[in-house]
Amino acid sequence: MRILITGAAGFLGSHLSDRLIAEGHQVIGLDNFITGSPDNIAHLAGSENFIFYRRDVSEYIFVPGKVDAVLHFASPASPNPQSPTAYFNLPIQTMKAGALGTHHALGVAKANNARYLLASTSEIYGDPLVHPQSEDYSGNVDITGPRAVYDEAKRFAEALTLAYHRQHGVDTRIVRIFNTYGPRMDLEDGRALPNLLKQALLGQPLTVYGDGQQTRSFCYVDDLVEGIVRLLYSDEHMPVNIGNPVEMTLLQFAETINRLTANTAGITYVDARSSRDPQRRRPDITRAQNILGWQPKVDLEEGLRRTIPYFKEKLGLS
Amino acid sequence: MRILITGAAGFLGSHLSDRLIAEGHQVIGLDNFITGSPDNIAHLAGSENFIFYRRDVSEYIFVPGKVDAVLHFASPASPNPQSPTAYFNLPIQTMKAGALGTHHALGVAKANNARYLLASTSEIYGDPLVHPQSEDYSGNVDITGPRAVYDEAKRFAEALTLAYHRQHGVDTRIVRIFNTYGPRMDLEDGRALPNLLKQALLGQPLTVYGDGQQTRSFCYVDDLVEGIVRLLYSDEHMPVNIGNPVEMTLLQFAETINRLTANTAGITYVDARSSRDPQRRRPDITRAQNILGWQPKVDLEEGLRRTIPYFKEKLGLS
Repeated sequence: MRILITGAAGFLGSHLSDRLIAEGHQVIGLDNFITGSPDNIAHLAGSENFIFYRRDVSEYIFVPGKVDAVLHFASPASPNPQSPTAYFNLPIQTMKAGALGTHHALGVAKANNARYLLASTSEIYGDPLVHPQSEDYSGNVDITGPRAVYDEAKRFAEALTLAYHRQHGVDTRIVRIFNTYGPRMDLEDGRALPNLLKQALLGQPLTVYGDGQQTRSFCYVDDLVEGIVRLLYSDEHMPVNIGNPVEMTLLQFAETINRLTANTAGITYVDARSSRDPQRRRPDITRAQNILGWQPKVDLEEGLRRTIPYFKEKLGLS
Repeated sequence: MRILITGAAGFLGSHLSDRLIAEGHQVIGLDNFITGSPDNIAHLAGSENFIFYRRDVSEYIFVPGKVDAVLHFASPASPNPQSPTAYFNLPIQTMKAGALGTHHALGVAKANNARYLLASTSEIYGDPLVHPQSEDYSGNVDITGPRAVYDEAKRFAEALTLAYHRQHGVDTRIVRIFNTYGPRMDLEDGRALPNLLKQALLGQPLTVYGDGQQTRSFCYVDDLVEGIVRLLYSDEHMPVNIGNPVEMTLLQFAETINRLTANTAGITYVDARSSRDPQRRRPDITRAQNILGWQPKVDLEEGLRRTIPYFKEKLGLS
């Protein structure tokens, strides 16, 4: 297939490009490098199966020639208020990527009679009141809160995708992506995993907020990509959660990281942040198991071992 | 002030135009007549304080000269699956009015340093699990359901409006409009009030679904317009519910209508619809009372008396 990927220079877009090229497809990558990085696709520069255009998909999408699939992954996605590339700090770009970008990407799929896959997110569940989250949960998103620029943009993108499917017969798919980690992730993305892993590799005590009993689930990027590719090849039009349902407390997680990195600096407890980070979020992956025969295979220790060399390189430790 | 109103030929947009012209403002009305009607603004044709352009605000908004305020009211809004102008049947136009239309209207407000008011809706609460609904309730919207094209578009529009306020300092306001009725409403909009009032005026038995114990609250249009104008003149940026909190069962409502119209055909009970109409929705108007000093003044009987002549005319009974 000839596959268009928006956000191809992002963490997930670049891994997806690698995987689809390895399967024999040709990938046309688009990115405006607002949050994606040329480093993530530098290794593809010589490939005859990778064509790259620097584009803002919120403005316009033009693709020379026919495409068979469109994967819309372009969006700021970091929830770190201190990061200049976080969606908090790119609020209007984030909403445009979700609404105008989705509209343009669906237009390309419609014009080409191509299949379409939207990268959605567990953020559409907001601060969930139900655990784990299954796809029929309506979520708990505060429209007026700072996270809404991302959450509501993705909710809108899902609804528009289903509208194109129902109204125009576009062959759409929607993946709801949960917390993912691995090489090429943004070290400053503000989530617990990069924050703690950075501290451990620098020999610092790990910062745990509150009592450390809030939980997280982490999916290794190769597992996520496997799920997305299976969804792309499937005929499923309704949203599918892809993520790792193994839930652990942040305290357990910090202890695992300190052990794997041989960090002896221990843990520092500080007051719970005032920011409204969800206390818990865990995917119900029943649909992915039943429809795609998918479940994650890489456990946290193995995933961290594969991720640590990348972190060391980025931190100048290798 | 020179005031731009999108959706000016709609039920609410036309009443708002009347009111603002009566207060000495100049109104520039835009409408593409997909759901609005030239009839609603025909009486303004001679006014030097009303300028009208036939435009699709999802495409582009150009306004000659300076404007002091932008009121974005353009959107399909009927939840009647049988009506060709319902949002179910204009799903992509509805989502574009909410996303692209809001984006364009905010752009006009930003370029003109004008105040901005978004017409949002009680639909952002979806099928609420909390009664009455106050503005801090996150709602219960099924992203994958047929109503999502309207509900998620309005949620997105609210979040984008707040993003423009926070990021660009645009002087924005958001009104969440609950069930409203009065002259110029769409007789086919599918809500309980026009359905039952039509039947009563035609001397037919009123159709009540299920046991008639589901409740509704109805706001007369003059009350709604008063609340919106007060919000426009205020400095309040966070969403404000405007609606009538007097709740009654559909059975009580049907009996009131039969009495007022002297309809002797009674009531017919039929199976509850399969469509997911909310069972209850009632505004908590504490914020409107405290911030705007507003509350509805027209009770249901008085409002129906003012509405009946319009229905008779439309039904060819006058």
